[in-house]
Amino acid sequence: MAQAISSKEVVILEEGSVTLPLGFKAGGIHCGIKRKKLDLGYIVSDVPAIAAGVYTTNIFQAAPLLVTQESIAKENKIQAILVNSGNANACTGEQGLTDAFEMQKEFASELGIQSHLVGVTSTGVIGELLPMEKIKTGIKQILMNEYENEENFKKSILTTDTCMKQIAVQVKIDGKTVTIGGTAKGSGMIHPNMATMLGFVTTDANVAHDDLLYALKDVTNQTFNMITVDGDTSTNDMVLVMANGLVANNQLTKEHPDWELFVDGLKIVCESLAKKIARDGEGATKLIEVQVNGAYSQNEARAVGKSIISSNLVKTAIYGTDPNWGRIVTAAGYSGVPIEPSLLDVSLGQYKVFEKGLPCPIVEEQVKEYLQQENIKILVELNQGDYNATAWGCDLTYDYVKINASYRT
Amino acid sequence: MAQAISSKEVVILEEGSVTLPLGFKAGGIHCGIKRKKLDLGYIVSDVPAIAAGVYTTNIFQAAPLLVTQESIAKENKIQAILVNSGNANACTGEQGLTDAFEMQKEFASELGIQSHLVGVTSTGVIGELLPMEKIKTGIKQILMNEYENEENFKKSILTTDTCMKQIAVQVKIDGKTVTIGGTAKGSGMIHPNMATMLGFVTTDANVAHDDLLYALKDVTNQTFNMITVDGDTSTNDMVLVMANGLVANNQLTKEHPDWELFVDGLKIVCESLAKKIARDGEGATKLIEVQVNGAYSQNEARAVGKSIISSNLVKTAIYGTDPNWGRIVTAAGYSGVPIEPSLLDVSLGQYKVFEKGLPCPIVEEQVKEYLQQENIKILVELNQGDYNATAWGCDLTYDYVKINASYRT
Repeated sequence: MAQAISSKEVVILEEGSVTLPLGFKAGGIHCGIKRKKLDLGYIVSDVPAIAAGVYTTNIFQAAPLLVTQESIAKENKIQAILVNSGNANACTGEQGLTDAFEMQKEFASELGIQSHLVGVTSTGVIGELLPMEKIKTGIKQILMNEYENEENFKKSILTTDTCMKQIAVQVKIDGKTVTIGGTAKGSGMIHPNMATMLGFVTTDANVAHDDLLYALKDVTNQTFNMITVDGDTSTNDMVLVMANGLVANNQLTKEHPDWELFVDGLKIVCESLAKKIARDGEGATKLIEVQVNGAYSQNEARAVGKSIISSNLVKTAIYGTDPNWGRIVTAAGYSGVPIEPSLLDVSLGQYKVFEKGLPCPIVEEQVKEYLQQENIKILVELNQGDYNATAWGCDLTYDYVKINASYRT
Repeated sequence: MAQAISSKEVVILEEGSVTLPLGFKAGGIHCGIKRKKLDLGYIVSDVPAIAAGVYTTNIFQAAPLLVTQESIAKENKIQAILVNSGNANACTGEQGLTDAFEMQKEFASELGIQSHLVGVTSTGVIGELLPMEKIKTGIKQILMNEYENEENFKKSILTTDTCMKQIAVQVKIDGKTVTIGGTAKGSGMIHPNMATMLGFVTTDANVAHDDLLYALKDVTNQTFNMITVDGDTSTNDMVLVMANGLVANNQLTKEHPDWELFVDGLKIVCESLAKKIARDGEGATKLIEVQVNGAYSQNEARAVGKSIISSNLVKTAIYGTDPNWGRIVTAAGYSGVPIEPSLLDVSLGQYKVFEKGLPCPIVEEQVKEYLQQENIKILVELNQGDYNATAWGCDLTYDYVKINASYRT
């Protein structure tokens, strides 16, 4: 494990991921959905784990999401997750549902566990039936030792992503070390809600189901639901958390003295993955962070942040290192939030460009130089109330157009 | 005037514009806001005209919009419009307001009319003060005969537009020929509401103010508010209609027997301009029309249409001539409208690609060939209710990114 950036209470392990918590293994293979790359992966826990999920709000929820939700509902647990990339199994009707159930059943049979203990999910092209023979052949081989490898899993879930994404944290619960690890994939059709991506989080903590679900929803609203790449909310997004309890701490609930610490750890994992997805947005060259302060409510702060981070004009200006703050103010102005123009301040990094509703004198070249960095911070101060929010996204580039003008064919 | 494409009751004059109705003249000059192109233009009526306007919903409404709204409110009339391009006079505070009033006063003085009879509007870069000396010098020269020219006006309002936009229609009201002419500019920050553009419509009809305003709002909701280029709602959008009554028909109100015909004519003008703006969106190579049928309400039909036409993924797929209907279905699915997946049909041109919630067998090459055309029609049938809507937009291309990564600097 690489170096640990530790704060007092949360140890961050940049290289850690889903198999760092006790009792989890993961792997992946190439089964033939994609031409060459890994396209089928799994996470398995030694014992059934308390499970919580959040799912896309798109009306055309893909078949595997329906299967996974229904399965978790049976006893709030799963023991394994099977993921394929290259084909979303979305808009595939009854046959798609049959296929998702079959994926689940076949993998459960290999593991020797009940079907409803397997969560299934898919990502890739919409509207094509899964190549079930290839997937079934893959499922028969995937548990072989040679494919058991966390890196294989992290690779097998990717589509147009350019890199794997992972993070783990450790916190002390009842004096015992609890680990939370995660991985995720982006990188197009990325827009709240929900996360418009796949995220997998594992932990060896013992957590009550309802509280875990509550924490996941709350954290998702602050992290995965605050990123956008292109404003398109996919049919397949989900984040799953598995908590297998192998650390044997006293069960975590909202009443547990270390509850906040556990949620902080979960939030660090989800925020880190969310930012990595935004940075790795299709064609992106920069990560953009929009911090909105001083709103009348949490929802208003989020709405302003999302409006700015979703603006194609803001995104292209950042790509072109153009300190065109007028586009930021414009996007705030159409967010639907009752902003008071004469109170608004905007900064790009350390440079204040707009103050109390008026442009500030700036040295254009200085700000342009700032915008050449890879991490851009936009600070918007509404100066109206006490609520803040952060949103993350990326610039809009030639490569975004290139990737999406020819992704499928 | 070029050839007239006449329907039975509405004669369409593709080359007609704002000076075709009786008693209007227009012109434009280069006053120095832009480097070379025309940047200051006017429309003047021989007599005060009943005026109606619709304005951006962006909270940061630019100074000239405030001035124009306030002025029209005085007696529901204006006699002239002064427009500059190259500078939006937006986010310019008290000084911006003072400058807009001064533009108005100076031009009124040249015309020898009261200030409140001049509407003013601006388009271009946000957050810079108007170069008032240049504008004032321009105003002193602009009424000279050599600059009086409808084409000059149509050019003077453009920013990144690649072409002028115009249309006129003629209808018989009380047996007299009434002409309605219009011009508009796009072509970035184009998204409802309102039109995110400038539109100017003139007519020699005699129309009651309240009814004219009602008709303009209704027509705008079906036309200018149904287009998008990039989802960004500008600070400066407005559409102004001037009706100078020189045809001397009996005053048009909702009770007039020819009222519907007049509104039809107005709608044809606005729809034509709206489509031209969409087609001339920044970097666009294609006009996309999304027809949504069978919704439970007008608003739901519009919401589905806007969601699809705004999707970067749909726009890039069309650019790449990729029959990726999954992105269309996805965008419908996150529109917020309670669609029933198993009832949904989608066609690209004459090719049905999705029926009752399932993919249709298609000959990929045929659909790809269709998508190579310049005008693409997407038909979405919800099969739920009786309401329909149409939305227009354009593809998302390398050139959009190029234009917007470096527009300002």
